[in-house]
Amino acid sequence: MDRKWDYDLVPPGPFKTIFVTGGAGYIGSHCIVQLLENGYEVVAIDNFANSVEDKHYKGESAALRRVEAITGKKVHFYDCDMLDRERLRKVFNEHKVDAVVHLAAIKAVGESMEVPLQYYRNNMIGAINLLEVMKAAGCFQLVYSSSCTVYGEPKSLPITEDHPTGCITNVYGKTKYFIEEMFKDVSTAEKSWNIITLRFFNPVGAHSSGLIGEDPTKKYTNLMPYISQVAIGNKPHVTIFGADYPTEDGTGIRDYIHVMDLASGHVAALECLHDRPSQRLRVYNLGTGKGVSVLELIRTFEEVTATKVPYVIQSRRDGDISSMYADATLAWKELHWRATRNIKEMCADFWKWQRLNPNGYPKNDNSTNGIEKPQVLKEIN
Amino acid sequence: MDRKWDYDLVPPGPFKTIFVTGGAGYIGSHCIVQLLENGYEVVAIDNFANSVEDKHYKGESAALRRVEAITGKKVHFYDCDMLDRERLRKVFNEHKVDAVVHLAAIKAVGESMEVPLQYYRNNMIGAINLLEVMKAAGCFQLVYSSSCTVYGEPKSLPITEDHPTGCITNVYGKTKYFIEEMFKDVSTAEKSWNIITLRFFNPVGAHSSGLIGEDPTKKYTNLMPYISQVAIGNKPHVTIFGADYPTEDGTGIRDYIHVMDLASGHVAALECLHDRPSQRLRVYNLGTGKGVSVLELIRTFEEVTATKVPYVIQSRRDGDISSMYADATLAWKELHWRATRNIKEMCADFWKWQRLNPNGYPKNDNSTNGIEKPQVLKEIN
Repeated sequence: MDRKWDYDLVPPGPFKTIFVTGGAGYIGSHCIVQLLENGYEVVAIDNFANSVEDKHYKGESAALRRVEAITGKKVHFYDCDMLDRERLRKVFNEHKVDAVVHLAAIKAVGESMEVPLQYYRNNMIGAINLLEVMKAAGCFQLVYSSSCTVYGEPKSLPITEDHPTGCITNVYGKTKYFIEEMFKDVSTAEKSWNIITLRFFNPVGAHSSGLIGEDPTKKYTNLMPYISQVAIGNKPHVTIFGADYPTEDGTGIRDYIHVMDLASGHVAALECLHDRPSQRLRVYNLGTGKGVSVLELIRTFEEVTATKVPYVIQSRRDGDISSMYADATLAWKELHWRATRNIKEMCADFWKWQRLNPNGYPKNDNSTNGIEKPQVLKEIN
Repeated sequence: MDRKWDYDLVPPGPFKTIFVTGGAGYIGSHCIVQLLENGYEVVAIDNFANSVEDKHYKGESAALRRVEAITGKKVHFYDCDMLDRERLRKVFNEHKVDAVVHLAAIKAVGESMEVPLQYYRNNMIGAINLLEVMKAAGCFQLVYSSSCTVYGEPKSLPITEDHPTGCITNVYGKTKYFIEEMFKDVSTAEKSWNIITLRFFNPVGAHSSGLIGEDPTKKYTNLMPYISQVAIGNKPHVTIFGADYPTEDGTGIRDYIHVMDLASGHVAALECLHDRPSQRLRVYNLGTGKGVSVLELIRTFEEVTATKVPYVIQSRRDGDISSMYADATLAWKELHWRATRNIKEMCADFWKWQRLNPNGYPKNDNSTNGIEKPQVLKEIN
């Protein structure tokens, strides 16, 4: 059923129900833990394009069943592809949604250069559909999960939110940037919108329970899952691309942030949306503000986990950036949020997840997680 | 029926059949005249979002029936919205299409700032659907009609094709730019593509018969139709926004190009696509290379048409650019094309169209041309 909530007539209390897109993914599952523990009701959708369907319960998320175990609370989950606008609309209107956290996207930089059209279709149309469905339902509160990739090659460090965006060389980053621009334009044109764009730096780590974590279903992986796969013996060594960057040890520098800090950043953003309505659009970096080199990360990982992580050094890759880390003061000032977990905790928590789940979430042998997977969808009344 | 043409097995002869999106519009109808006169078969689609349905024949285009009268040749026309991917696919596969001219877009700068989401949906998704349908059919030859708006505020004049793009303040221009980037990414990833992006400057004028011309169905209009409406007595005066620009007479300078020159530029681009396959992506300006001020255009119009065009001067509008004109030498060098019609011919031809059709194409009283118009679609076998 379609509903339009008239906020002029019935002023909203604190947000109760949060709609999370991409809720079964790495960031999504950790955000949802944090949301549930802060007392929110959570409605989550995912299409299992880059997350794992529960081995036993078709249409359910492996990660979110564990989130329910961690929190003792229920997640309203729907197997829903955002390209299916009609289903998105139905799912959305099943609940009285107060605000949306939009995380759903395909996000492998390398893959995005090989199948750009899939990235444009999935990421752009997903976002367009979401805005239309939200608008039709009278919900204008949105937290958008963007990425530091929108800054392109840094012109100055640390990166503040007013650093120029655009000039991005990878397709994934372009879709993130184009969507940011679209949200800006929509919030400029229509005053009801209240949007916070969060630019993530490099999320790593896992929930301290070790029950949920990053389980990439694609061959393209981020650095920490790769390090961890080497430590556990599934891969022979880490390849470092470039040790001749103008950094202290020559390897690239990134701003790694614990995924649970990122999760609490989303809760802070939602509180800010609620407390300061009708702000149209604001942008915040979510990073620690501290750069860590690839070698430092490997050494910390070795130290914390008491394992060896062999590495080989190869030449730089095209388009890779030397150093990138956030100025995170604006989020502290306006969202009253900052990262509190250090690099050792990131390594330790990731390692706990990895040891407890060396092959990630349990999967069916005939699992075909991926964009093209046919789906059996939960019926909406 | 779905067909895949294997160009490795059957090398194509010269292009025979051209698929034109937005074929019933101002640029589209003029391009089609030129295509037919050069011996091409034309398959055209349009959704009448900014063009006129024939008064008597439902699902037919008023402009294209006149194009058939001008040329004595048949246009295969389909009332087709590019957002309907399934219908687009069916229409496309009805013919053995050799190359596509993609003109369809909603394009009113002012309107795009008011309803940005409509612009993102229509223009972006239309282009994504087109690429997918072309790829599935094995057709990789594409001429894309972009705009000089992608250059943003000029950093140097005349503008060459390697002038930076992006930094665009209006939503219409952003969609043009985003689509250019998408085409670039797709042609980088997949070597079959052979795309020419044409960046139009300011198209004006009409076919010399006076039978077809610009008939804007939106309240937002370009300068020449406005001047012409004043000359014919439908509007009291032209408003000039800003007479204090750093130009000779203080008014803004643009590169007006006769729409029939633009049309021949498309034919030249198609010939180039055919003669030099597998070039992935090339970009050309289509302009005269000569800047003309707003006041010059008004005075030339008065002189050529022997009418008075009163004007009033108001302050500058936000985002308007002082001067913008093309360096058109690359198109001359590589496409062997250049504009041959001067500003007097542009005014004279537009005026002929306007006098013969003071209210544009004949319309039904209950005409509801516009994006939301429900359609009765021609059936595809």
